[in-house]
Amino acid sequence: MTLKAFRSAILDFVDDPFYRSELESVRYIPDGLLVLEQGKVKDLGSYQQLAAKYAGVATKSYPNHLLLPGFIDLHLHFPQTEIIAAYGEQLLEWLEKYVFPTERKFADKAYCEQVAPIFIDELLRNGTTTAVVLAAVFPESVEALFTECQRRNLRMIAGKVMMDRNAPDFLSDTAESSYRDSKALIQKWHHQDRLLYAVTPRFAPTSTPAQLAIAQQLLKEFPDTYLHTHLSENMKEVAWVQELFPDSQGYLDVYDQYGLVGERSIFAHCVQLTESEFSRLAEAQSAIAFCPTSNTFLGSGLFNLERATAPQSPIKLGLATDVGGGTSFSMLQTASEAYKVTQLRHQNLSPFQALFLATLGGARALQLDDKIGNFDLGKEADFVLLDPRSTPIMALRNQQALPDDLEALSDPLFSLMMMGDDRAVRATYIMGELAYDREAGLGI
Amino acid sequence: MTLKAFRSAILDFVDDPFYRSELESVRYIPDGLLVLEQGKVKDLGSYQQLAAKYAGVATKSYPNHLLLPGFIDLHLHFPQTEIIAAYGEQLLEWLEKYVFPTERKFADKAYCEQVAPIFIDELLRNGTTTAVVLAAVFPESVEALFTECQRRNLRMIAGKVMMDRNAPDFLSDTAESSYRDSKALIQKWHHQDRLLYAVTPRFAPTSTPAQLAIAQQLLKEFPDTYLHTHLSENMKEVAWVQELFPDSQGYLDVYDQYGLVGERSIFAHCVQLTESEFSRLAEAQSAIAFCPTSNTFLGSGLFNLERATAPQSPIKLGLATDVGGGTSFSMLQTASEAYKVTQLRHQNLSPFQALFLATLGGARALQLDDKIGNFDLGKEADFVLLDPRSTPIMALRNQQALPDDLEALSDPLFSLMMMGDDRAVRATYIMGELAYDREAGLGI
Repeated sequence: MTLKAFRSAILDFVDDPFYRSELESVRYIPDGLLVLEQGKVKDLGSYQQLAAKYAGVATKSYPNHLLLPGFIDLHLHFPQTEIIAAYGEQLLEWLEKYVFPTERKFADKAYCEQVAPIFIDELLRNGTTTAVVLAAVFPESVEALFTECQRRNLRMIAGKVMMDRNAPDFLSDTAESSYRDSKALIQKWHHQDRLLYAVTPRFAPTSTPAQLAIAQQLLKEFPDTYLHTHLSENMKEVAWVQELFPDSQGYLDVYDQYGLVGERSIFAHCVQLTESEFSRLAEAQSAIAFCPTSNTFLGSGLFNLERATAPQSPIKLGLATDVGGGTSFSMLQTASEAYKVTQLRHQNLSPFQALFLATLGGARALQLDDKIGNFDLGKEADFVLLDPRSTPIMALRNQQALPDDLEALSDPLFSLMMMGDDRAVRATYIMGELAYDREAGLGI
Repeated sequence: MTLKAFRSAILDFVDDPFYRSELESVRYIPDGLLVLEQGKVKDLGSYQQLAAKYAGVATKSYPNHLLLPGFIDLHLHFPQTEIIAAYGEQLLEWLEKYVFPTERKFADKAYCEQVAPIFIDELLRNGTTTAVVLAAVFPESVEALFTECQRRNLRMIAGKVMMDRNAPDFLSDTAESSYRDSKALIQKWHHQDRLLYAVTPRFAPTSTPAQLAIAQQLLKEFPDTYLHTHLSENMKEVAWVQELFPDSQGYLDVYDQYGLVGERSIFAHCVQLTESEFSRLAEAQSAIAFCPTSNTFLGSGLFNLERATAPQSPIKLGLATDVGGGTSFSMLQTASEAYKVTQLRHQNLSPFQALFLATLGGARALQLDDKIGNFDLGKEADFVLLDPRSTPIMALRNQQALPDDLEALSDPLFSLMMMGDDRAVRATYIMGELAYDREAGLGI
């Protein structure tokens, strides 16, 4: 069997640095060798330790780079790619003014096929190898996206948005059509190669009770799909949900009433959660997608990271760009914004914690940590090479070679997270194959 | 006399969009011609209108770019260049842990001379043509900085930090030495070519009353220098000032007691100001440097832009990076963060308002609007060419050519401000001479 190897400083996580010390949770190999067989991790260790054993193996070296697991973006919108950074509104007005008119374009299959490769290119350029994606209400948008992901051999999760009220007619489905379309997509795409499906009611205000019941039915019929939706982003939204569902005990309870709060549920935002809602998410082992650039851009508020990671009732958590409410495809820039959100709350976020959320944390949130998220043996080898000197100011900041010890690594790692952008991504590999190279460009 | 001309979409401000409509305050020429004579603005108008008149003049064209006045960064720290994005502290601890040890290096003249060109390069790469700079406590640091600025013909304001208590011995001056050193620097550099001096007590906690009195004396002796310091950044700092100056009526009052609150005073941050302090700044016609990336990075808080621009008592205001408390040299990224700060406060900041702050607003704050800040005839021609398609995602976002009307411009302009970084700066010109070109690099 043909092997291949990569030599670099290697960083991944073996446990959760919110609950364990860095020594227990971070695996850092200053001069490491990652050995792959058929796209999966065959061996991992120091170069010195493994070099002789794999002496004949073709080895690609990235000196002064940091090799990490590919980033996992826990929540973003395929049809909002082109309206990233639209001006001047908060959530509900922004949906009306920018999002809905743009999503309409995705009724056109040819348009979907035109945008899909651009969207995927942008993910790979930013080192994101897995994402949980809302497509549009139109099945064509899922088709185009999955087709492109399959072509690139990506482990990707997506779903058709379900939306049967409080949306323009041209964007609305019905409970019945959303069932039929979602089911057909699941049957065609779920577990095709590396693809997985998420049942995706947009958010409680745009689904009738009948449609939420349909979502529940889909999850029952296909219990290993995901539930992916929005939760408690903005105060006006929360109040609106209470009006629409007057019998509910709050926003999360609406989803709970329809059996949508489970261990394969991903809730984006969660900025306005009550303590009892946090507890319920912990109990249900649901996951939160923390979307800091979106939460600041739309003025939604500052996510309570400290509560989400409270030792007595921890919640599965990952980072997400939420493009186009978020302002960047970069998970580094997203981590930077996450840090600022915690600072504004006088909380803490170490660079190790942030990068955990962007890798193994996301994988755990998706129950995919047996397949991706770190370099344990047998895992699928999606990874990214980060360059700590990718801009002149970063080159000045990080003049010294990457250090040998973990403690000293936190400084260059933090600067990568605070100042790094797409340029910091030197290369992105999918199952051990080069998928993006900063110098050579995309479409490799 | 030799003329030169630049053809591009041209944008500048003729009044303040916080108080006037966009039609009254913004000057937008979709296909414009900027004509220069000896580095100053000789003529400005549409290409169609002026082409015949300047038919023989060498004209450089930048199609699909936006030509703006050079950015004015109202507050940043030369000796903190290399510690940008240092991890994990709020203001006072960050000073102790990162800032003071680094500033010590600037006692060495050779080190100052090594960092000065890097610092200036970074400003120019980001389109910043004027800045108000804190050097270190050591006069050598001002010497090196002004020498480099003079070599590049920059309009730049800087000063030696005055700091005679609550700082390490190796960084402390005395009231007497700070007087002597500041005075010598003023006599040597103030009004040398385009350079201006700012009397620069670091902030109230690090100056004795005797040193604040010295600052007052310097301003009396040299009334057209500036006063540049920090004010009300962080709650602990505010409390500390009250302890150190128990007889004061608040933080600003400390400066007021020493006659430091005047129309040539620039106060950085002002996140924690009381209403009476805002009113006092308005009355005194002092300027605020709004430092959003720093305020979020250090968790200081969210500046009250709405109050600072209240119609009944407006305050002179500009934008500032505050590197190294700020996380970017880019005034575009700074404007982006300013927008997010206002969104989180449920306030507003239009792209025109943000770019006004970064250009004419800053010039007015410095009483330099007779020389820089827009393209009125006779002004010094420092300007920047912005590229709305500087990254793949921005190219997708801004596929259409720049529009002909002002209203349609707000969308691409907003995306430039939200997503633009150093790459969005195609070129920077100083007095009409190319000082930075994205393709050719620096040191032209």
